[in-house]
Amino acid sequence: MTNSFYPPRRTLMGPGPSDVSPRVLGALSRPTIGHLDPLFVQLMDEIKELLQYAFQTDNELTLPVSAPGSAGMEACFVNLVSPGDKVIVCQNGVFGGRMKENVERCGATAVMVEDNWGEPVGIDKVATAFEQHPDAAILAFVHAETSTGVRSDAAALCALATEHNALSIVDTVTSLGGIEVKVDDWGADAVYSGTQKCLSCVPGIAPVTFSERAVARINDRSHKVQSWFLDMQLVMGYWGGSSKRAYHHTAPVNDLYALHESLLMLQEEGLEAAHRRHRHNHQALVAGLGAMGLAMAVAPEYRLPQLNSVLIPEGVDDGLVRSALLQEFDLEIGAGLGALAGKTWRIGLMGYASNERNVITCLNALEAVLARQGAPITTGAALDAAQAVFRG
Amino acid sequence: MTNSFYPPRRTLMGPGPSDVSPRVLGALSRPTIGHLDPLFVQLMDEIKELLQYAFQTDNELTLPVSAPGSAGMEACFVNLVSPGDKVIVCQNGVFGGRMKENVERCGATAVMVEDNWGEPVGIDKVATAFEQHPDAAILAFVHAETSTGVRSDAAALCALATEHNALSIVDTVTSLGGIEVKVDDWGADAVYSGTQKCLSCVPGIAPVTFSERAVARINDRSHKVQSWFLDMQLVMGYWGGSSKRAYHHTAPVNDLYALHESLLMLQEEGLEAAHRRHRHNHQALVAGLGAMGLAMAVAPEYRLPQLNSVLIPEGVDDGLVRSALLQEFDLEIGAGLGALAGKTWRIGLMGYASNERNVITCLNALEAVLARQGAPITTGAALDAAQAVFRG
Repeated sequence: MTNSFYPPRRTLMGPGPSDVSPRVLGALSRPTIGHLDPLFVQLMDEIKELLQYAFQTDNELTLPVSAPGSAGMEACFVNLVSPGDKVIVCQNGVFGGRMKENVERCGATAVMVEDNWGEPVGIDKVATAFEQHPDAAILAFVHAETSTGVRSDAAALCALATEHNALSIVDTVTSLGGIEVKVDDWGADAVYSGTQKCLSCVPGIAPVTFSERAVARINDRSHKVQSWFLDMQLVMGYWGGSSKRAYHHTAPVNDLYALHESLLMLQEEGLEAAHRRHRHNHQALVAGLGAMGLAMAVAPEYRLPQLNSVLIPEGVDDGLVRSALLQEFDLEIGAGLGALAGKTWRIGLMGYASNERNVITCLNALEAVLARQGAPITTGAALDAAQAVFRG
Repeated sequence: MTNSFYPPRRTLMGPGPSDVSPRVLGALSRPTIGHLDPLFVQLMDEIKELLQYAFQTDNELTLPVSAPGSAGMEACFVNLVSPGDKVIVCQNGVFGGRMKENVERCGATAVMVEDNWGEPVGIDKVATAFEQHPDAAILAFVHAETSTGVRSDAAALCALATEHNALSIVDTVTSLGGIEVKVDDWGADAVYSGTQKCLSCVPGIAPVTFSERAVARINDRSHKVQSWFLDMQLVMGYWGGSSKRAYHHTAPVNDLYALHESLLMLQEEGLEAAHRRHRHNHQALVAGLGAMGLAMAVAPEYRLPQLNSVLIPEGVDDGLVRSALLQEFDLEIGAGLGALAGKTWRIGLMGYASNERNVITCLNALEAVLARQGAPITTGAALDAAQAVFRG
């Protein structure tokens, strides 16, 4: 016998989804209206403007793709990459590898620039790759690597692309709303994100934005985009500025209510204040973890405040700790991925979940579970260290 | 200044989305949990079973694609169609044309079998197409054409495909939950649907199911699926039966809460009772429209009870009527699409929206608006005619 599902109230401090605010959940469950309803069309326009603010762009082609972040990634690649193209792909974590998959499925060649997991994309390596491949059509990289918690220098990388007459594709899934994302200042050409990280909206939608250069390349295509669903020429007709919208697919109406509300919250707080809040809570968490004797996996200058990679102390059972946190404290933190599986935890402080209460909850719970396992940690010092940051 | 969005309470009697029940909206807004949470993994298993019931199939590969119905369509095509394949595509409305687009974007050839909009797919024509193209790898057709309100004979069409050693791809976006969909009895190979029609869930998710033959073809592929996001080999690893799930994308957690609840409601009512309800309310609506003097666009034997195409009386302004219904009665009905634009209205009685109150609401509102426009209708008879069906 199957019953209605009543989820527990978790504290979501993994790599996403992050805690969704009651305000956003409230918006989510408002009555569904038609996707062609004039009021819904107005809402779409407002979402577009709110996304332009979040991305810091005037790009006309700025909209939420009706599918998760990975579909946002694919939308950027299938619209801009043509068979035979050469694409420089930077890999310093899981998502660079996924970009490579996308390039190859477009019939193009990926020139890989690899960096260690836990380190940022090497600017010099990318410059060298452009020298060796002056015909590269596109540079693709991840701004904030969700698998490692590392920030790369998006401004420098986009500038390199522009200098070499290539378009840039930038993954801001984990950065948008948490740290500076300045699409126009960077000169980025195709940028995608997700809703379930620092926007603290429900998962399932992928905000994207395309520069005029990118739109020109899309309009100049000599062959159709291999995906009908993600074909931006068709999606533009649905989301576009013209008064008569061409039906493409049925928009995820309620998810867009939620996205609208979460973007509104971001606008009300202001981007700078939101970034400051993320930094502040991050500093408190790091201070607490440090006082406990736990080390961070990423050098301070590249750390993402919204996703904190912590080295698992020797002798500690990764799975057991995460399971105890979940079962006893309703607290979710993330496991390491790929090369870092079993070596790190990923503690998210994203969006609505980036707050004092969560920092304290996490430090308390982690200390209790680690102490019980006999881990080599210092007890009783973490909270004071975090509080000192909060009060100071 | 942008404010929170408070939608009005519409009655959704268009081609979808349909009215979503408070029970489903309630489920939608429960607290988000992680997509790797053991409790969420259990929920995924339950959804799979509930979908198997809805589709009437034992297919192991049955799951909700994390994107709208059009992505469900694309998932079927990109996984099963290879470059150079020949695909027989039946077109008797908008969505057959979209199938053709999908075939061509897979580098394959579409052999079109065309029927008039408003008529079902011609079985004889399909048989002839198979005789002329014995090498056709796939037959694709729409079970319930959302653009016209026509049901085609899925059992006969799937049998033809099997007889000619071809796979079948079947669009059940508008049929699932409203009329019989019997995937195993039909011998259908790849079937997709949507959540926002007769399941009366929020839009944005596409249930799909693949037969063993289809899975074998997927596993035998010599080249990668052109879409990473929709690659069923990867999606299977995420949704599949193995104890360790491979991360693919972040599932739309809250949408899946809602889908679970709506499928549960369908199971509680029972498929046969749900179909009976759809038929009954359809008969009442048709009786009322007939008493008003309005004619249906589709012959009785092919009519979809959940989507009623009505001929717009001469001299009546289509847009004005729909706009008045929306503005004054908060009632949405659908416009005609493509060849039927301006000629028909599409009145949905889908899922939760298929109820007596909606039939009465629609007849009343339509009569009032048409009478005011001086349309050639009979007033004062529609309600009695509908009530006679309800009481009889």
